[in-house]
Amino acid sequence: MDDANSGHALLVDLYELTMAAAYFEHQIDCRATFELFVRHLPTERSYLVAAGIESALDYLENLHFTDSDVKFLRAQPAFRMVSDKFFAYLRGFRFTGDVEAVEEGTLVFAEEPIMQVTAPVLEAQVAETYLLSVVNFETLVASKAARVVSAARGRGVLEFGTRRAHGPEAGVRAARAAYVGGCVATSNVLAGYRYGVPLAGTAAHSWTQVFPTERESFQALLETFPEQAILLIDTYDALLGAETAAALGRAVPGVRLDSGDLVEKSRRVRQILDARGMQKTKIVASGDLNEYKIEELLACGAPIDLFGVGTDLATSRDVPALSVVYKLVEIERDGRIEYTTKFSDQKVYWPGRKQVHRFPREGRYSQDVVSRAGEHYDDAEPLLGPAMRNGKRARAQRPLAEIRAQTLVNLDCLPAPYHALRAAPIYPVRKSATLDRLLDEARERYLSAPRATRVK
Amino acid sequence: MDDANSGHALLVDLYELTMAAAYFEHQIDCRATFELFVRHLPTERSYLVAAGIESALDYLENLHFTDSDVKFLRAQPAFRMVSDKFFAYLRGFRFTGDVEAVEEGTLVFAEEPIMQVTAPVLEAQVAETYLLSVVNFETLVASKAARVVSAARGRGVLEFGTRRAHGPEAGVRAARAAYVGGCVATSNVLAGYRYGVPLAGTAAHSWTQVFPTERESFQALLETFPEQAILLIDTYDALLGAETAAALGRAVPGVRLDSGDLVEKSRRVRQILDARGMQKTKIVASGDLNEYKIEELLACGAPIDLFGVGTDLATSRDVPALSVVYKLVEIERDGRIEYTTKFSDQKVYWPGRKQVHRFPREGRYSQDVVSRAGEHYDDAEPLLGPAMRNGKRARAQRPLAEIRAQTLVNLDCLPAPYHALRAAPIYPVRKSATLDRLLDEARERYLSAPRATRVK
Repeated sequence: MDDANSGHALLVDLYELTMAAAYFEHQIDCRATFELFVRHLPTERSYLVAAGIESALDYLENLHFTDSDVKFLRAQPAFRMVSDKFFAYLRGFRFTGDVEAVEEGTLVFAEEPIMQVTAPVLEAQVAETYLLSVVNFETLVASKAARVVSAARGRGVLEFGTRRAHGPEAGVRAARAAYVGGCVATSNVLAGYRYGVPLAGTAAHSWTQVFPTERESFQALLETFPEQAILLIDTYDALLGAETAAALGRAVPGVRLDSGDLVEKSRRVRQILDARGMQKTKIVASGDLNEYKIEELLACGAPIDLFGVGTDLATSRDVPALSVVYKLVEIERDGRIEYTTKFSDQKVYWPGRKQVHRFPREGRYSQDVVSRAGEHYDDAEPLLGPAMRNGKRARAQRPLAEIRAQTLVNLDCLPAPYHALRAAPIYPVRKSATLDRLLDEARERYLSAPRATRVK
Repeated sequence: MDDANSGHALLVDLYELTMAAAYFEHQIDCRATFELFVRHLPTERSYLVAAGIESALDYLENLHFTDSDVKFLRAQPAFRMVSDKFFAYLRGFRFTGDVEAVEEGTLVFAEEPIMQVTAPVLEAQVAETYLLSVVNFETLVASKAARVVSAARGRGVLEFGTRRAHGPEAGVRAARAAYVGGCVATSNVLAGYRYGVPLAGTAAHSWTQVFPTERESFQALLETFPEQAILLIDTYDALLGAETAAALGRAVPGVRLDSGDLVEKSRRVRQILDARGMQKTKIVASGDLNEYKIEELLACGAPIDLFGVGTDLATSRDVPALSVVYKLVEIERDGRIEYTTKFSDQKVYWPGRKQVHRFPREGRYSQDVVSRAGEHYDDAEPLLGPAMRNGKRARAQRPLAEIRAQTLVNLDCLPAPYHALRAAPIYPVRKSATLDRLLDEARERYLSAPRATRVK
């Protein structure tokens, strides 16, 4: 991959670096494990499609501070009391830790670790912001894509959202994530260049407006792109546009409708095309589509072959953020493991390193159990596996098309009720008894000798 | 600026490049004007704070295709019929056009052009995707920030959203835009490095968890950052945490609350601190805050000095996209101007190049008139000015702090009713009679000789 910002150490919240400085100055070099997970699923999502893990691993492999990064930090007033040694350390900083992660395309649920980072505490801390950001966003879009693709019932979904994504770079990441989630192609050219996502495109209204007549604009586009041109027929009047396209006397790969009543229009356009023997001409629909609208269009029998989905997909408009967090779960100090958690206000999370086990029944997923790492179940598949060892990738990167194919298999393994777009049941995820005991022990330890000891 | 992706010509929707190829192959080289504007304001926004314009100008100044970009495009099946000349042209491609734009920080409303691009049609077309994406996103965040800052009534707002932004690069752009919209600082270090946004940070729960006691964690942080440390006091129990901080026997710059009932907690924490003579210790609140929650906290009298706002700000969670569009409004061909528009389905936009005039009354904004470019009003301020001439910036870049200060002045000029967080009235924007006439003429021309002429 070739992400210009990958490994950029300043793409981080300041507090990761102030804590890093303070860890360094106080010689706190215990080995720590942080887990990255989604605290709870929003009501609009009954499952998530994990993504962003390759972005995270790229970052960890390339993470370093340049001379100018270090110079910038040193000049910050906050770092005035920090020793030269820390800045010298930063100059040579690399991530040397281990990462366990699920494969991209894995379905995940609330409180299931997606990544688990074990490293000297300073290194693991510095990585927090970037890891949260890429896993949050790419998982968000892959999950939205899976819903849209599911609603399209076998018709192709094209990702068209870069113009409304949160900046052009978000558009590239969204395009990749949407493909991981099951889209067939994207309009974002850099996603094709960088990740190999298949590309698709049509034409804009401006193309038609530049010509004296719509007919001339269609002819010109077909001359240059005889096998790919999708004619945008609704610049002036979609049905007249369809008739113009049908009367060109040549093969038209496709036409696109971008506004209005898509059920009625697609039916009439189909009739116009078919009357001219153009059964092979595909109808592409776009215009603020999402999974709900696509479900409705198909329920009404709209003869649409491909859906172009932009804003709702690239921004996950109904749920533009997940409750991803990155929590310290254990520390190894002087050869002893300490299990950490916090108890403030409904934000409890189970301490200790974990594994997620997925139990199948008749070829479908039936339930998950989150256990302590090392627990084993004969009849379940463990989801977390070694992704990085000593700062280097520990498994080969799979081709993106293979990840996408696996996502579709995974989605097929999720029982039908969980695919409902609205009011889907909650997939059962339980904690193992051993993991529960670890939490109880931590709570007892805290209650008997609270770490926040009253001092007056 | 130093955006790694600026000028990256492949950060574009494929159709801009297929249209470019087809314009080239058909020797369509008219000069075209596109206007970038927001079609309508969402009900949750009564004004927008324009941003993203500097990102757009950076892009236009740097836009070029590398050898490997061209090689990639040439290998795409869609471009099979495209001539070598086009690819040679791309290799030397530069944006040579003119841009009119409002200044960043200007308040804008629906259907008011934010940017106006005039260039050979191919160049103006290629720029569409990137310009929409940066103006959409940065305007979105600057506008959200202005609402949050307004709700905070003079207390500082810190932007903390990178971890939930749509990828880390979106976090950097969000940090800059939030500052343009009135925030006082960001946690995003790269935004400090690249744009000079002031930085702020505290500490995470993990910092406290690593130490045997909370007290030791506080002491250690204060040793390294005596003048900046903000102690996060709610890892275990916020009130015990506050007592621990108050009993350290040294100055504490600030404490942070990140969960629970912030009204009750901030009051009791303030009492604990004040009882120890720590009136100068600031209370920072965070945890899924937004303008509505801040308004409520302050209405309840919560003694909070600074608000850290993350997800809702960096994703503009309630409105994660604007209806930004980029529309062809006129073409100059053989010395003649043609005014273009389209009439399909409620998506009409006035043809022709425009100017926006803002009329003051007693030092406040009273109404806007959108006119044809060249119309003049003695008693109004024109908002669009020359930003680029022949592909080069035509005005000096203002320091970011100056842009922010101007935003605050502009917000102050917007009458109070429009600042209501809910159900604010609609600011009056009218079209000039001359502009209306141009639309009528275009409609008449279309009705008398529709461009989508029925051909059978």
